Amino acid sequence: MYRTHNCGALKINNQGEKVTLSGWVQKSRNLGGMTFIDLRDRYGITQLVFDMDRNKELSEKARKLGREFVIRIEGEVIERSSKNKELVTGEIEILVNKLEVLSKSETPPFTIEEKSDGGEELRMKYRYLDIRRNPVRKALELRHKFTQEVRNYLDNQQFTEVETPVLINSSPEGARDFVVPSRLNQGQFYALPQSPQLFKQLLMVAGMDRYFQIVKCFRDEDFRADRQPEFTQIDCEMSFVEQNDILELFEGLAKQMFKRFKNIEFTEAFPRITYEEAMNLYGSDKPDIRFGMKIQCLNDIVKGKGFKVFDDAEFIGGICAENAGEYSRKQLDALTDFVKKPQIGAKGLVYVKYNSDGSLKSSVDKFYPESELKLWAEALNAKPGDLLLLISGDKNHSLNVLNELRLEMGNQLGLRDANKFAPLWVVDFPLLDWDDENKRFHAMHHPFTSPKQEDLHLLDSNPAKVRANAYDFVINGVEVGGGSVRIHQEEVQQKMFKLLGFSTEQAYAQFGYLLNAFKYGAPPHGGVAFGLDRWVAMFHGSESIRDVIAFPKNNAGRDVMIDAPSIIDDSQLKDLGLSIKKTIK
Amino acid sequence: MYRTHNCGALKINNQGEKVTLSGWVQKSRNLGGMTFIDLRDRYGITQLVFDMDRNKELSEKARKLGREFVIRIEGEVIERSSKNKELVTGEIEILVNKLEVLSKSETPPFTIEEKSDGGEELRMKYRYLDIRRNPVRKALELRHKFTQEVRNYLDNQQFTEVETPVLINSSPEGARDFVVPSRLNQGQFYALPQSPQLFKQLLMVAGMDRYFQIVKCFRDEDFRADRQPEFTQIDCEMSFVEQNDILELFEGLAKQMFKRFKNIEFTEAFPRITYEEAMNLYGSDKPDIRFGMKIQCLNDIVKGKGFKVFDDAEFIGGICAENAGEYSRKQLDALTDFVKKPQIGAKGLVYVKYNSDGSLKSSVDKFYPESELKLWAEALNAKPGDLLLLISGDKNHSLNVLNELRLEMGNQLGLRDANKFAPLWVVDFPLLDWDDENKRFHAMHHPFTSPKQEDLHLLDSNPAKVRANAYDFVINGVEVGGGSVRIHQEEVQQKMFKLLGFSTEQAYAQFGYLLNAFKYGAPPHGGVAFGLDRWVAMFHGSESIRDVIAFPKNNAGRDVMIDAPSIIDDSQLKDLGLSIKKTIK
Repeated sequence: MYRTHNCGALKINNQGEKVTLSGWVQKSRNLGGMTFIDLRDRYGITQLVFDMDRNKELSEKARKLGREFVIRIEGEVIERSSKNKELVTGEIEILVNKLEVLSKSETPPFTIEEKSDGGEELRMKYRYLDIRRNPVRKALELRHKFTQEVRNYLDNQQFTEVETPVLINSSPEGARDFVVPSRLNQGQFYALPQSPQLFKQLLMVAGMDRYFQIVKCFRDEDFRADRQPEFTQIDCEMSFVEQNDILELFEGLAKQMFKRFKNIEFTEAFPRITYEEAMNLYGSDKPDIRFGMKIQCLNDIVKGKGFKVFDDAEFIGGICAENAGEYSRKQLDALTDFVKKPQIGAKGLVYVKYNSDGSLKSSVDKFYPESELKLWAEALNAKPGDLLLLISGDKNHSLNVLNELRLEMGNQLGLRDANKFAPLWVVDFPLLDWDDENKRFHAMHHPFTSPKQEDLHLLDSNPAKVRANAYDFVINGVEVGGGSVRIHQEEVQQKMFKLLGFSTEQAYAQFGYLLNAFKYGAPPHGGVAFGLDRWVAMFHGSESIRDVIAFPKNNAGRDVMIDAPSIIDDSQLKDLGLSIKKTIK
Repeated sequence: MYRTHNCGALKINNQGEKVTLSGWVQKSRNLGGMTFIDLRDRYGITQLVFDMDRNKELSEKARKLGREFVIRIEGEVIERSSKNKELVTGEIEILVNKLEVLSKSETPPFTIEEKSDGGEELRMKYRYLDIRRNPVRKALELRHKFTQEVRNYLDNQQFTEVETPVLINSSPEGARDFVVPSRLNQGQFYALPQSPQLFKQLLMVAGMDRYFQIVKCFRDEDFRADRQPEFTQIDCEMSFVEQNDILELFEGLAKQMFKRFKNIEFTEAFPRITYEEAMNLYGSDKPDIRFGMKIQCLNDIVKGKGFKVFDDAEFIGGICAENAGEYSRKQLDALTDFVKKPQIGAKGLVYVKYNSDGSLKSSVDKFYPESELKLWAEALNAKPGDLLLLISGDKNHSLNVLNELRLEMGNQLGLRDANKFAPLWVVDFPLLDWDDENKRFHAMHHPFTSPKQEDLHLLDSNPAKVRANAYDFVINGVEVGGGSVRIHQEEVQQKMFKLLGFSTEQAYAQFGYLLNAFKYGAPPHGGVAFGLDRWVAMFHGSESIRDVIAFPKNNAGRDVMIDAPSIIDDSQLKDLGLSIKKTIK
């Protein structure tokens, strides 16, 4: 037997018991004739004590144990003289009378502590040692508990988890697929699913009524920060529902998760704001509403005063950063540099300092006397001590810049508290997205997203204005989920394909099996998919989804621990009927 | 709103309520002025009634509804005159006053009934219609409930579900991998896991202590009946355990499943028999112990009587088929044909009829007088009315034949009741398997399986005799799961690799990341993996795992519904740096 208890179990009421424990040597200290060892396993740490006076040979053996050796000991539970209130087991220690080394350890390449001294690349290479660290192990445990809770909630709501296939067909729309050559059908390929979208819709046609799946999805994207080629979705679909039914049910799920894992009880409904509002007020379709600082269009106030930059601009928008009126010249220059960064791309930044004495000072004093600035301040609801920041130019671009600026100011002013959560639904996304380069529409969500009933008449006359029954679930500026009500009427689907520039043949070539299925009685249906990695990362307080994935890949799509991908045998290639083209690197 | 209730909800106490229902038209009947429609959804069937006298237009509309049309109705719950006790909703019907067709249906290619008139290939092509059938939907629901229960059991036992990667490295041992060409690392490939074996062992090194995962695995095998290229395992691993700890814990899981899904309470421990016993008594390492009919070695009794076939045979074994003594000449000839089938490959069958008058009649009377046959009957514990069946030849092959014959007789005599379950553990599998062709040992389980402590001394002297801490879980002759205690000591691992003919370099090339991990303190560990598809199929009473997979592939690895695999775009191939060799088909 390796253990009678784990390393997080023993307390003062076990005093006097003979126990067997196994685990890893976390650290050891020699104090005179005594040797203390912290023995660690997943459940906790228990202090072992070896007494040189009582058993010299054993104590000397204990002194030879290195960090991360795996040992088994037998001993007696005794009360500690100096208790550790931080530890569950901190009131006791084990007086050891038997010690066996189960396996030795070389010196680990980094410290196995709450905060390790190892860099990320090194910790990824030795991920199995990184996982021994509390924060990593806790992230994986949280992920497990999270999925258990999701499953229980959905099971209670009569959802059935159905596994959809991993080896499917490639679809030329959307991101790039990973493909899998077929040996038995040479020259043909499977593809790994980017999502089970079509299968979950088929399950609705199949009458499953309520489906979910916690499922791996795959996207062959180019290098991009914090993207993983394989990621996990909570994928859901329901029949005989309207948008509101879906939002309410999954709001219930989210509330349960907040309660269980963050101890936050949301008694009110989550805010729902339209895509249009979100863009106008926050410059983003995934606004962080932990703080206000809403964008205000200032066109009517600032135009026609001789300042050419504003007069020529399609849009001038401002935000009011409360209590930032004392910003120094240096800080303001840094903000200007921030908005001018290539990835943000503003041409400049106009600011107005609303001094605490009530005076106003701007970077465009030449064009706007204080009386004018006062009007700006009023429009932005500013008070003395605040800072007004204005961006101008093309409307969409300016809103994007204001979004970035607003988030940055939120960070600088400490308004984005990681322990505060502000979930919301963004609804009424546009159905279509105009691709200026190729002069065609793309589906904003996907080609099966249903237009809003009241906008159906616009499909012919002004398709860009048609809103969809599509929605995103956003927490703290992060898109955690999204979905839509699907089209279940063939005529609407045909019209949609036409708008997207698909011929009937093209539509059938790509989605034939779904279109065929729809001929046999499709129920109204809709659903949602949540990014599990991202949601758990947020609850774990991590910036990166890598923190909540057991064996993540790096930004180049490599698993540095197992060194994948790698070269395969020529015989494997031959079996697949494939050859590798010589490429110049 | 599409529904106030589902189609399985309304009962007599809802009488008088105004309700809205949606679903599929299962069937309709016109009786005089009344039209009756069975409305179906996942939850049940509710009868709708349309009265020509009350509403002619509505009734005529109803009469135009075809099978599988999706409709929404409003109406009033009324008591039925002729109640249907078979249906939950059989005491009521809905007097309809409003009808909307949500979507039409073409005539389905087969009947959507308990027993369909569609052949398997057709039902697979239209799997979304097949799933509408009760038995298929129920199989998927059972699968869902089964995995929920497994997760809850393991969660209660402090197991953590951890997702291991799907994009890993190819391993040349074992079955063929599916590979995934990497676009970002041209010429390199990921592989899809045949199991998460190495990752679960890494998680033990990582200190996760108790891991499980319900996970898709992939094997690129040749055409084989009832194999799927992607299948699902319940994969588990534990640290600081010995074999018995593992068996007990998972026996608990199995008992809970039997209780929950089959209402069978196993109060005793499952039988454990050794591999050697299983082979000697049943000729199989996955014996069906719902019935006896054990194999008996008859060498001592039958040899040396001048019957050359037996005298030359390494092994002569017999079984006693109770109450089959009346088998006709025709039946006996059929049995002989059965064992002579190429896939069984016996040269012949010797039988002895133990007649009810106590006389004995055999196919080898020439060599064995009745007094001799009496001895055979005694050895096989036969009684008047039984049939003795003997097979001779090479020992292993004869045992295989006797296994097939025993199972066939079990079928013929009705001893293999699908509602009876006889689980057991087969333990002490051999560590190694001699490959006569390549003159080398293979690992019977895998190269990390630990030898039994008491057989360690045989590793050098007689490796073929070494038994492993490896076990299978068998129900009714089906291997439902299997696992082993792993090697955690480097010296033993080195010895194992040597026996398997791996150089250190080869071992590192294949398993380097695990061997490296073992250098940093590996705990003793072991685990098990269950075939989810097979276990659920057994509980569902299905012969084929296809019945419990939502979208299975056929025996050629094709998904006939979506027609995968398929040809991909040249541009995709170009991006991957691959070209397809011309092959002559």
